[in-house]
Amino acid sequence: MTLAVNLVRILGIDPGLRVTGFGVIEMHGKQLRYVASGCIKSNDKHSLPERIATLFAGISEVVATYQPTQAVVEKVFVNVNPQSTLLLGQARGAALSALVHAGLPVAEYTALQVKQAVVGQGKAAKEQVQHMVVKLLGLAGAPTADAADALACAICHAHGGQGLGAMATAGYRVRGGRLLA
Amino acid sequence: MTLAVNLVRILGIDPGLRVTGFGVIEMHGKQLRYVASGCIKSNDKHSLPERIATLFAGISEVVATYQPTQAVVEKVFVNVNPQSTLLLGQARGAALSALVHAGLPVAEYTALQVKQAVVGQGKAAKEQVQHMVVKLLGLAGAPTADAADALACAICHAHGGQGLGAMATAGYRVRGGRLLA
Repeated sequence: MTLAVNLVRILGIDPGLRVTGFGVIEMHGKQLRYVASGCIKSNDKHSLPERIATLFAGISEVVATYQPTQAVVEKVFVNVNPQSTLLLGQARGAALSALVHAGLPVAEYTALQVKQAVVGQGKAAKEQVQHMVVKLLGLAGAPTADAADALACAICHAHGGQGLGAMATAGYRVRGGRLLA
Repeated sequence: MTLAVNLVRILGIDPGLRVTGFGVIEMHGKQLRYVASGCIKSNDKHSLPERIATLFAGISEVVATYQPTQAVVEKVFVNVNPQSTLLLGQARGAALSALVHAGLPVAEYTALQVKQAVVGQGKAAKEQVQHMVVKLLGLAGAPTADAADALACAICHAHGGQGLGAMATAGYRVRGGRLLA
């Protein structure tokens, strides 16, 4: 007799045209386990269709390699430069396309929600996010900022997009709105 | 003995999150022949990932059905509303993803270039574009504005992204910067 295990493996994506971060974690009950992280870079000397092809193929490869069951993509903000907003939007469209094409359900959270869930406050600096990702997943070294953001996105989803209240319930120690790692 | 024919079949795309227009034409020497056109609509009550999935699947289906050898996507402009720019960017990213995933080479032209190529002036109204598309392809009726823009994009590419100079060379009658149909 085999035990039916509903393995939840979450792929987080921090989209960008130049660099798209990705991070994969697994949920074992209420515990989180790091699987992989990294980033997909596109060459800014290439045409936009070529860069979109690089991102789409890169994310498709990550999905094929790590076989996530769910995906999460950070919501992006409008830039002060409208052209940058347009480029970022196209990169995010390519990321979403690769995920839905692979048949994955896709959740979305704002950077504010992600920081709130991982650091305990929406205005946290990138370094704080990296620090908490290392602590929460018990990593030996810090991932790059883009990979850390993607992992933070996956952690946020693992806790139902909720903040530290849910994490305290999950057994993490929270004091004064901060997670104690 | 079979005759080797290099059939050029161009798929033009006018991307949008709500409506994405498409148009397929064939080049027979310097003559253009209409193949198909239409539009892919996404439901604005659905989530963004679902809408991106609809656009991606729709374009993939158009490619599978009409087997184009080249694709052209109109360049989009930044909107006065930055959120709209972000949504339009994501729709365009999905369109580009579907085309590059299908292995198609993708060209890009601005609306100005397309109008210049088809109507003879960059500031042409939508109705003028529709009118010229009907005339140039010998259509019985006018396609919708989105489909007409997509067909115009394909026509622009058929003439190497050039304006009426190239079209005059191709046998069309041009007078005073206008194409006589």
